[in-house]
Amino acid sequence: MNTHSKTADWIAVDWGTSRLRAWAMTNSGAELTSGASEKGMGVLAPEHFEGALLDVVSPWLGGGATDVIACGMVGSRQGWIEAPYAVVPCAVLPTGYAIPKTNNALLRVHVIPGIRQDAPADVMRGEETQIAGFLALNPGWDGIVCLPGTHTKWAQVSAGELVSFQTFMTGELFATLSDASVLKHTVAPTGWDEAAFVEAVSDVMAKPEKLAARLFSLRAENLLHGLEGDTARARLSGLLIGAELAAARPYWLGQQVAVIGASTLSQIYGAALSAQGVPATIADGPRMTLTGLTAAYKALRARDA
Amino acid sequence: MNTHSKTADWIAVDWGTSRLRAWAMTNSGAELTSGASEKGMGVLAPEHFEGALLDVVSPWLGGGATDVIACGMVGSRQGWIEAPYAVVPCAVLPTGYAIPKTNNALLRVHVIPGIRQDAPADVMRGEETQIAGFLALNPGWDGIVCLPGTHTKWAQVSAGELVSFQTFMTGELFATLSDASVLKHTVAPTGWDEAAFVEAVSDVMAKPEKLAARLFSLRAENLLHGLEGDTARARLSGLLIGAELAAARPYWLGQQVAVIGASTLSQIYGAALSAQGVPATIADGPRMTLTGLTAAYKALRARDA
Repeated sequence: MNTHSKTADWIAVDWGTSRLRAWAMTNSGAELTSGASEKGMGVLAPEHFEGALLDVVSPWLGGGATDVIACGMVGSRQGWIEAPYAVVPCAVLPTGYAIPKTNNALLRVHVIPGIRQDAPADVMRGEETQIAGFLALNPGWDGIVCLPGTHTKWAQVSAGELVSFQTFMTGELFATLSDASVLKHTVAPTGWDEAAFVEAVSDVMAKPEKLAARLFSLRAENLLHGLEGDTARARLSGLLIGAELAAARPYWLGQQVAVIGASTLSQIYGAALSAQGVPATIADGPRMTLTGLTAAYKALRARDA
Repeated sequence: MNTHSKTADWIAVDWGTSRLRAWAMTNSGAELTSGASEKGMGVLAPEHFEGALLDVVSPWLGGGATDVIACGMVGSRQGWIEAPYAVVPCAVLPTGYAIPKTNNALLRVHVIPGIRQDAPADVMRGEETQIAGFLALNPGWDGIVCLPGTHTKWAQVSAGELVSFQTFMTGELFATLSDASVLKHTVAPTGWDEAAFVEAVSDVMAKPEKLAARLFSLRAENLLHGLEGDTARARLSGLLIGAELAAARPYWLGQQVAVIGASTLSQIYGAALSAQGVPATIADGPRMTLTGLTAAYKALRARDA
C-alpha cells in the first residue's frame, strides 16, 4: 500500500486564492499523507471546484462519505460556495459551515466561514483557522496574534473570542514595489541585511509620514551612492513593516504577541517586534492551519455525535 | 508648404522614459509645429536614439546644422548620453550640456543635465527644465514648486537656484495599487468624489501611520458596505497624497507654492493644498517644459554669441 492509496478518516483542506493544500487525516488527528495543487480559488469557476479537489484527494476516499473540512478563499463569494461571515466579537472558530453540493457521494464538504468586522470594515478568511489552531495548542491564551503575509492581519483574542482585527497591505506593497515599480532596478530578489532592516523599522516608526519619500530614496541611494540590492531589499521591508508597526501600536503595546506565518517572514516580524521591546512567540503557519482544521473537525463530530 | 516641411531655427525635445515629444521652433520662441513618438528612453538602445529623433524631426531640418535642446531621461546613464548631474544648491538650469555624436551632420544635440542631491539622496531629470520655464515666466519668483506625476517632486527655489528637493513615489503607488493589487476590484479606472478625496487627505495627514491599514479598508468597505468605485478611487488618491503632504510639510508650510504638471493631477494637488489653507498657483506642465527648453536655448546662444 503506497501513501496515495491510504484511506482517510477525514480530509483537511486549506484552499486559498492561488493554491489548494490537502491532508489525509485519521480520527485521532494523525496525518497520513498530503497533497497540493495550483488550482486556487482565483483560477476556478464554481463548477470546477469539485474536480480540482478530487484531483488531489480521490486516492484517500473510502467506501462511505468522507468529511472534508476546508478553510480560506474557497468560501468567498467568488469561491465554491459562499460561507457567510461571522461578525466580531465571535468565537475564533465560527460554526455554520457552508455545504456545497457535490456529484461524488464520497465527498461531504464543510467550508469554514470567514469573519468580518463592520467598523472599521475588515474581513478575514483562513486566518481564523490558524488562530484556532494556535488556541488549540495554547488553551486559555489571551493576547495579540499577528499573521504576516500578503495581507497581514493583527487580531485581538480574549477568552477564546476574536475581539477585533485589522488588515495591512504590507506584503502586497512589498511585492508590487519590488517587482513592478522603479525600485525593481534597486531591490534584489533575495538577500538580506538585518541591521538595515532594524534601522529602517525604527526610522519609519519615529516618522511614519516619511514612508513615501523614503521609498524613492532607495532608488536615489542606489544611483548616487551604490546602495546594495540586499540592503535595499531589507530596508524596503523595514520601511513597510515599520509603518505597519506604527499603525498597529494599539494592538501590540504592552501585550503578549504570537506571530503565525511562513517561517522566514515570521522571523522578520519577530525581529522587528523584539527591537521594540516586545517578545513574540513564533508559530508555524501551515501547522496552525492543520491544527485549526483538526479543531474544526472535532467540533463538527462533537456536534453530530 | 505643409506643416511637416517647415524648417526650424532650433528644435525643443522632451524625451522621457516612455515618450519623445519635439517642437519645431523659431529663434523668437514661436512654435511652428510639433511631433511625438512612443520611442522613449525605456525602449531604446544608445545607437537607436538618433534614428528615433530623426523619425520625428527630419522634416524640420534645413541646410545647416540645427540645434536640438533635449531634457529628460535621454540624459540618464541608460539614455543616449549621460549628462552628469549638477549638485544642489545650483542654478535651476545647469549648464554643461552633454553632446552626443550624430551621424547626421544636420543635428547638433544638447542634452540638459539632471540635478542631484547627495543627502538625502535624490535625483531629477526633466523637472529642472519645467521649473526653469516657470521662472522664465515669473522672474525673481521664490518659493516651493510641486511637480506631481509618477514620481512627484517638491523643490525649494530661491534666487534662481534649486536649494533642495524631495521625490515621492505617490503616482507610482497609485498606479500599482489600483491596477495590480487586490484593490483593482474596488477602485474604478475613472471617476471621482471630491468630498471623499478631501476627507481622506485630512484623515491621513492627522494620522499618517494609518496608511497601510486604510488601504485594505477600501477593499473591505467595498465588500461589506458597497463602497462605490469612484469614491474608492478618490479616497485612494487622497490617502496617498495626504501621506505625501504630511511628509512634505516642511516644504509647503507658510510658503507660496506653484504646482506644475498635467492639468487634472495639478487641480487635485491644488485642491489638497487649498484644504490645508495653502493657495497654489497652477502651471501647465508641457508648457513649462517648452518654456524651459526655450530658456536653455537662449542661454546656449548667449554663451556662443
